[in-house]
This record gives sequence, structure tokens and C-alpha cells, in this order.
Amino acid sequence: MKKLIAVIGGSVINSEEVREIAFQTGKEIALRGYVLVCGGMGGVMEEAAKGAKSVGGLVVGILPGKDTAEANPYVDIPIITAMSHARNAIIVRSACCVIAIDGEYGTLSEIALAKVIDKPVFGIKTWDIEGVIKVQDAKTAIDIYEGKIKL
Amino acid sequence: MKKLIAVIGGSVINSEEVREIAFQTGKEIALRGYVLVCGGMGGVMEEAAKGAKSVGGLVVGILPGKDTAEANPYVDIPIITAMSHARNAIIVRSACCVIAIDGEYGTLSEIALAKVIDKPVFGIKTWDIEGVIKVQDAKTAIDIYEGKIKL
Amino acid sequence: MKKLIAVIGGSVINSEEVREIAFQTGKEIALRGYVLVCGGMGGVMEEAAKGAKSVGGLVVGILPGKDTAEANPYVDIPIITAMSHARNAIIVRSACCVIAIDGEYGTLSEIALAKVIDKPVFGIKTWDIEGVIKVQDAKTAIDIYEGKIKL
Amino acid sequence: MKKLIAVIGGSVINSEEVREIAFQTGKEIALRGYVLVCGGMGGVMEEAAKGAKSVGGLVVGILPGKDTAEANPYVDIPIITAMSHARNAIIVRSACCVIAIDGEYGTLSEIALAKVIDKPVFGIKTWDIEGVIKVQDAKTAIDIYEGKIKL
Repeated sequence: MKKLIAVIGGSVINSEEVREIAFQTGKEIALRGYVLVCGGMGGVMEEAAKGAKSVGGLVVGILPGKDTAEANPYVDIPIITAMSHARNAIIVRSACCVIAIDGEYGTLSEIALAKVIDKPVFGIKTWDIEGVIKVQDAKTAIDIYEGKIKL
Repeated sequence: MKKLIAVIGGSVINSEEVREIAFQTGKEIALRGYVLVCGGMGGVMEEAAKGAKSVGGLVVGILPGKDTAEANPYVDIPIITAMSHARNAIIVRSACCVIAIDGEYGTLSEIALAKVIDKPVFGIKTWDIEGVIKVQDAKTAIDIYEGKIKL
Repeated sequence: MKKLIAVIGGSVINSEEVREIAFQTGKEIALRGYVLVCGGMGGVMEEAAKGAKSVGGLVVGILPGKDTAEANPYVDIPIITAMSHARNAIIVRSACCVIAIDGEYGTLSEIALAKVIDKPVFGIKTWDIEGVIKVQDAKTAIDIYEGKIKL
Repeated sequence: MKKLIAVIGGSVINSEEVREIAFQTGKEIALRGYVLVCGGMGGVMEEAAKGAKSVGGLVVGILPGKDTAEANPYVDIPIITAMSHARNAIIVRSACCVIAIDGEYGTLSEIALAKVIDKPVFGIKTWDIEGVIKVQDAKTAIDIYEGKIKL
């Protein structure tokens, strides 16, 4: 059984820095042997998916709508929930840990839904919420998750 | 069709002040003619429900589990979702506005899920999140919602 | 805590007989002291809701969409799931028993979702499925549910 | 983007014939280049997953519970919904077509949830429901789905 890491973040990207972070995060997740799970749409989700695919990774998109039309082109496996934002709970529960990048209220809901079920949440330039572990990059996040870095 | 106001907050109450706020909030919602919708469980949800019932109000509990056993004794109408925290999205979407009192990550997820669909969220001694309107009590919250107080 | 009885059936009605059965079913549910829960939309759901309201009953509509616009005018309490047909599971789980009238695949899914969690399902001119108790009217269904008629 | 075919069926298998059909169905799905999506648990789901893995296929399990403990050992990608049977709607919506094998009420709910959104459903020794295309094996089902056999 593969292990999934979730990348959560806004569906619109407002800076090249965030775009690069999202891409590198997806790439790192794939290089470390994890499947990327995300909301399957644009913005941070799309850049992370693109990053994972750039090194041959696998991308699962848990979509809010009723068909695959809204999926970004880097999603390998579209899961069609037709459940709008309630699908946010599925994204974080399916992951062994969560990396939040930038984002707005949707991302905040995912951070909270992850924390309420005790999933580790790492944050890069995102909401400053108690319990979210601020990191510089995905490498650090995964090193902490894997116990290679002790907090 | 009745209008519903959601009360969200922790399932454990740590102070008499929060208990009293929750009770008065439920009471005010009922007195103003709204149905109280909440997660149906203990803590803030139960006190608010008790407050609503104290003046003859109607209480809807959107439960996370598989039966009514977890419902607090003031729930009139139990909605059994068997969807764990994904039901948080249903609570806030069913409401015309949301009053958050105290609370932890579950409450934070509901605040965020409400804001992402543009529901007005009022906060009393809760998470300090951009876009949440801080109020002293439910009377003020409902006055703002009804346009009796202009922001 | 009130007890809910679900009425499930098609969103389009093709005969006056089905219309009358749906109306009388909603009426009987209310007269017997139960809350009517249904999918909140047109057809059998609307006629049953109308019947319940004709005698002062209470109607809960578990809606599939994102707002109340789709609710029929007899719904008192709209629960907005934004979950499309996944909300069918919530309708039947919230009920103590289910009365199926006519209907197509949506109704069949509700019959099956009710049976898989061992809810009693009564059928009037609906799908002929093993385990569904065929009855002539809602009075008989509720009499069986309440143990006044032994099978 | 990969295309998914859903296999639905009982979590208990009562005959060697059904076991073999489930295994061959999963194998055929993988050989034809599709991802297998199923409920991720035992019985028909597990045999189909085993069949897909026997030829190097990919298996997505949309699980009803709160963790991966209930997943069968052939699931590659566990999606953890914590939504009980409401997850049945996600399984069939994520698939381009559905193959039903044997099964009880849970399977019936999936057949109905698929038909209500116009997904092709093929049936092998399962519920006899109008609109389900009876086939001898998965090869025939996929040939029909792909237009190689005209009905």
C-alpha cells in the first residue's frame, strides 16, 4: 500500500515564489516515494501535481465537482466526489501528513480538518495556526515526518 | 421555510463564562425566531441547545456518527450523517449565519468552511481569523445579520 | 427527541394515484406524531411534504444542492448538503423507518442504503426488492413499525 | 489522466465461481489499461484487486472507515472517506463504467447510484435490475464499453 502526502493550497497563485514552492513540494513528494494527493484543481494543487509528474510521480486528485472537467492536466487518478468542500476532509484523512502552502479559507479548513484527526501538518507561507509546523520546504517537512529530523 | 443559525464551538467547556455565553446564544437564536442548528453533541453545542429549548426553540443536530446515541438531550431533530467531520460542511451551509464560541480545531474547520462559501461568521471568544466578525453576544450578531446594526 | 420517518420516491409524478398516495403518506406521518424527512425536492417528496403540512406537521428536506432554491415550498427545515446523491444515505439513516413510493434509480439507491443498515423499508407501488415490506398505505406501514400489526 | 473501472460486489464470497469471476474481472481491467476502483474491502473487492495486481495493475480503494486497517492487502491507493456507505456514490462516480458481481444491498445501492448518474453498469450474477447490462465476463463488458461490441 502506497503512502500519500497531501498538498493543500489556494486555487489561484499570486507569486512566482509560491508557484516554485508548490512545484518543488510535489517533486520532493514523488522523489521520496510518496503518492501526491490534492484537491485536483488549479493553483497550488496544479503546480504541485506538475512537480510530482516531472519526476514520474503519481497524482491523486480528490475533486469537488461532478466530473473530471475541472481536474488539472497533471492528475493521474481523479476521484470524483460531487461533495464540494466536504471533500476536503477526505483529502487530509487519506494522507499520512499534510503540507500547506499559501491558501485561503479552503486551505484553512483543510488544516483544521487535518489537526482535528491528529494528522501532522507542515506549513510553508500559509495560515499561522497553532499546531502547524512551520518549515522552509518539503524536504524538511518529510524529514520531520520520517523522523530524520527531531523537533 | 425556517431560517437556521448555526452555533459552533468545542465539545468540552472549560469555563462558566463560555457555558453562559453558549446558553444565552441558543436562547437568543430561538427568541429571534430562528432554528438552532449545531453538531448535536456536548459542550457548546449542548449548552446552546439547552438555551434554545429553555424558550421553546427548535434544535437541529447534524451528528457525525451512525446513530442518535451521541446526541445531547436538547436535540429535537437529529440528522445522522455517519460522515465524521465532513458533516461540518453541512452544518454551516444549512445556516444563514454562523456564531462561533470558543472551540478548537473542529470549530476552526467550521469557521473556514463557512467563510469559503461566504456565510457571515460571528465570533465570541474564539479563533482570531480574518473575516470573522468579533461580537460581544448573539444579540449583536443577529442585529448585524438582520441589518439593524451597520458595520 | 423527535422520531423521523423518511418518504422516498421520484421527483416526477406520473399518475394521480401516486400523487394521492404521497400526500396521504405525509399526512399520516404527521398525524401519527413523526417528523417527515425527505429529499426536499419535487414529485413524491413535495406531495408528501404538502400532506404533512396540511395537518400541521414538520418537514425536513435533506437537499442535494448548494442552496435552498431547489427546495419544495413545504419544507420547514432545509438541510443543505451540497453532496448530490450521497445525501441519500443521510435521509435514510436519519429515519426510524422508510416508506418508498414509486420512484426510479434514486429511490432504489435509498431503498438499498436503508436495507444495508437494517432500517425497515415499506414499499407502495415501488421497486420489488427482497426485504421491502409491501403495504397498501402509510397507516399499515406505521402500524407495522409500531408493532400494532405483527408480520 | 487514467480511466477507472469500478468493481462492486459483496464483502463476503459464497462460491468459488464468484471468486474466480471477481479475480478475472480485476485482471481484465488491468490488462485493458484501466485502473481498478473499488470499495477496498474484502470479498469481491479483494479478489478483483488481487486479479488486477496479478498482472501489475493499479488498485484504488475508496474506504468507508476512518483508517487503512480495513483495506484489503491489494489496495495500492487507499482513499479514506470516513463516510460509511455514502462513499458508494464516490466509487461509481469516479468510474467510467461499473461491473457488478454478486453482492447484496450495498452492491444494489451502488448499481442504483451509478444508474442515476447514467454510468454504464454491467452485471455478472448480480441483482436483476432494469438498465443493468447482463454479461458473461469483464471482457465482454469492456468490449461493449469501448464500442467493440454493439448492443
